Amino acid sequence: MWVLVPPLIVMENGLLKENGLKPMDSEQLREYGHKMVDFIADYYKSIENFPVLSQVQPGYLHELIPDSAPIHPDSIQHVFDDIQNQILPGVTHWQSPSFFAYYPANSSIAGFIGEMLSSGLSIVGFSWIASPAATELESIVLDWLAKMLKLPQEFLSSGQGGGVIQGTASEAVLVVLLAARDKFLGKFGKNALGKLVVYASDQTHSALQKACQIGGIHPENCRLLRTDSSTNYAISPAALSEAISTDVANGLIPFFLCATVGTTSSTAVDPLTDLAKITKSYGIWLHIDAAYAGSACICPEYRHYIDGVEEADSFNMNAHKWLLTNFDCSALWIKDRNALIQSLSTNPEFLKNKASQANLVVDYKDWQIPLGRRFRSLKLWMVLRLYGLENLQCYIRNHINLAKHFEDLVVQDSRFEMVTPRIFSLVCFRVLPSSKDEGLANKLNHELLNAVNSSGKAFMSHTVLSGKYVLRLAVGAPLTEERHVNLAWNVIQEKASTLLSTT
Amino acid sequence: MWVLVPPLIVMENGLLKENGLKPMDSEQLREYGHKMVDFIADYYKSIENFPVLSQVQPGYLHELIPDSAPIHPDSIQHVFDDIQNQILPGVTHWQSPSFFAYYPANSSIAGFIGEMLSSGLSIVGFSWIASPAATELESIVLDWLAKMLKLPQEFLSSGQGGGVIQGTASEAVLVVLLAARDKFLGKFGKNALGKLVVYASDQTHSALQKACQIGGIHPENCRLLRTDSSTNYAISPAALSEAISTDVANGLIPFFLCATVGTTSSTAVDPLTDLAKITKSYGIWLHIDAAYAGSACICPEYRHYIDGVEEADSFNMNAHKWLLTNFDCSALWIKDRNALIQSLSTNPEFLKNKASQANLVVDYKDWQIPLGRRFRSLKLWMVLRLYGLENLQCYIRNHINLAKHFEDLVVQDSRFEMVTPRIFSLVCFRVLPSSKDEGLANKLNHELLNAVNSSGKAFMSHTVLSGKYVLRLAVGAPLTEERHVNLAWNVIQEKASTLLSTT
Repeated sequence: MWVLVPPLIVMENGLLKENGLKPMDSEQLREYGHKMVDFIADYYKSIENFPVLSQVQPGYLHELIPDSAPIHPDSIQHVFDDIQNQILPGVTHWQSPSFFAYYPANSSIAGFIGEMLSSGLSIVGFSWIASPAATELESIVLDWLAKMLKLPQEFLSSGQGGGVIQGTASEAVLVVLLAARDKFLGKFGKNALGKLVVYASDQTHSALQKACQIGGIHPENCRLLRTDSSTNYAISPAALSEAISTDVANGLIPFFLCATVGTTSSTAVDPLTDLAKITKSYGIWLHIDAAYAGSACICPEYRHYIDGVEEADSFNMNAHKWLLTNFDCSALWIKDRNALIQSLSTNPEFLKNKASQANLVVDYKDWQIPLGRRFRSLKLWMVLRLYGLENLQCYIRNHINLAKHFEDLVVQDSRFEMVTPRIFSLVCFRVLPSSKDEGLANKLNHELLNAVNSSGKAFMSHTVLSGKYVLRLAVGAPLTEERHVNLAWNVIQEKASTLLSTT
Repeated sequence: MWVLVPPLIVMENGLLKENGLKPMDSEQLREYGHKMVDFIADYYKSIENFPVLSQVQPGYLHELIPDSAPIHPDSIQHVFDDIQNQILPGVTHWQSPSFFAYYPANSSIAGFIGEMLSSGLSIVGFSWIASPAATELESIVLDWLAKMLKLPQEFLSSGQGGGVIQGTASEAVLVVLLAARDKFLGKFGKNALGKLVVYASDQTHSALQKACQIGGIHPENCRLLRTDSSTNYAISPAALSEAISTDVANGLIPFFLCATVGTTSSTAVDPLTDLAKITKSYGIWLHIDAAYAGSACICPEYRHYIDGVEEADSFNMNAHKWLLTNFDCSALWIKDRNALIQSLSTNPEFLKNKASQANLVVDYKDWQIPLGRRFRSLKLWMVLRLYGLENLQCYIRNHINLAKHFEDLVVQDSRFEMVTPRIFSLVCFRVLPSSKDEGLANKLNHELLNAVNSSGKAFMSHTVLSGKYVLRLAVGAPLTEERHVNLAWNVIQEKASTLLSTT
């Protein structure tokens, strides 16, 4: 399958000659770069022709690709052919206008060229000196975003706090959990680890559970408070108070609450202000995970969902979900950056430098798990510069209006029901069988989901709430228009009709 | 400073009209994408004109940039102007041919267009179903690379093991430390955490210390065995044996050894075969960190440095350091993938799907810290396809020959000395003052480093070995040729002459 091409390299005294491999030749970069831009632009032109959810079977690629790397170089044209014929069939098209699964992972032209510039400069910005612009732009742009979200002053870089770009919300919750853990262990001694208790709801993202596993919090000390439809799946402050009192009475140490604004299953919003009163009185670290819904809070009419954030120790939202910044760009703010640094810093000799030693600068390596980091602030900066706040607000409102529109369609069809109230751009709904059998309802909705996703015309996902299998339609892909929502609804109705007629 | 442009968006019944913001319009993507490719190609054309190490002062960017995000969009031309005038002065040019600091962070045309495609498709590949091609290509390409490195069969995906792309070596050592920790806690009970002991040398990368902090390993249970010039800063197996025996006698539980092939300070190579005998007899997890030097092991003549890898539990090398794959691409192989999965998996309802439930596929979310992941295998695949094994071997050899050449220059100047033998492409050397005063020697080398780096003509870094301040010149940037090495040496000689004449 490999085309044999004579090796490009001529060796002379062990050194490469001028006609050797030139992996960074600027003219070849220009040529191949332009080819790739055209490939991607053409991809977006035809993106509606692909099945949204990839329809390949497990192991499909092993059949198509050789067992080992080529000895000699292959041509760029062969590689493009293979992208088309081997890779694209296995891609689930997150940027398709008919992608309604999970939550969106936004891409935009601004984000794309920002990512390109980051990859083009190819710096590794672990500390300020390693590329001052990378650190400084990140601090500034996260201050911008904090102001767009009207976060309290203490989260800005001018004080004791500041913002940092993490890869994902999982890493964000992990680093603040570690900071809180180490603050408490500093006070109670390292053998107190087995006594530390974490609180959240049973709707909290699994990232919290993973962070606890990583940080050595005992699984039996993770209180995932049960929620139900009576609070629209938000935490009950009374239940939290009771759990904390019981734990304190048992000699345990409550130390961390993860509240969510816009849960993954159903966009539930935990009541921040009431929860903050409780965490404040016990000195518990309050982290707010607004990974998805945080973007909506740049609109004045949605900002109230994060009222109470003034009392939080840390706040997180993913600009890569719904704010047009290509994955990965998870924005984390913290009030006390030293808590992060105390938990995560190392100071090896080979990284020492005057600016860091003199404490004149931020070294983001001490705010995150990895040492190395990409120049990710460029893409967020590009998005804010090239679109501006007002356009971004309209962008969010448009998706929420499209979700409202879908909700109206669901409500108008008596065979369906809304399972939870729609708050942002996610609709949780299900089809109902003629009999009131919950087992049958679950089976039917599971089959409906498979039927819709197998059609390739739309991709949704599901969750389970109070034992009910629920369909989730999340609007938020940049290309989605009203016609795509209508098309998805038509497919859902059609597949539902077929299933209901055979049930 | 912001140029006011009328907002692009027209709202009608709350929905975007056709002339609204089109963040993914394929023709605008083409236009802006081509502009950015040209910008980056032009950057590489002129890269030698920039000072390698950015010469800005802390806080420089705050002076240049507004305090808040723009309300209205700005023009693409303004943004490009600001990249040129505001961002580039604060960039340390890792891709400059005169970048000799730390270790290299390779970029290449293949890596660049691979990263571009990943960002263009913009998928989030947490589980197989989320984009089957992302998972499958990653498994296949890491098998390719494992074969290039002649790793043992057990590291291939066909058995119980397999490879995965982590962001950095820090994340690689963290996930295997957690896997080992949880394996031992499973055996000895979770209250045994305070008894677990980690071993490494005092030359081991600080990432291990950070992983221990994160995983809750007690700092006093981290044995960083002292090394010196008698072993060229490699671990002494006798010292390891002794430390383990003492710990066992004291009721502690040895569980993890991190051996390094090519340490950060001086490319020391720990004696894997002898160390593996010890870890095997105690059942200790053996992890090999070959982040930098691993790339050299694709050449038959350097492969012997990882002899003993057959006995390791996990092996890591960074393709983004010295194998032309743009950051981030850290390749980790493990023999027992279930150990990783047991430590890092979560199984929330909203991610359940047929392929995962039936155990037919790999879900890489369970092999790493974050949930989301980029399609990083594309860039490694592009590098291997477009360059081929033979070219990559020559590429490595060329850098090693350039380092040899620099070593010859140092040896020929009696004012300088080599501090450790050169093994790969790093040269550790220093200038000697006329008197044999170590304090003076350290001060002199520190000043020499500052003088060279402040010149902007080359960028080196330093380390300290046995109390000696040592200069590190690491060859490995893709554009580096003999003339750049000679230029760096000329600057070093010139600055040294000035300093020596005034000392």
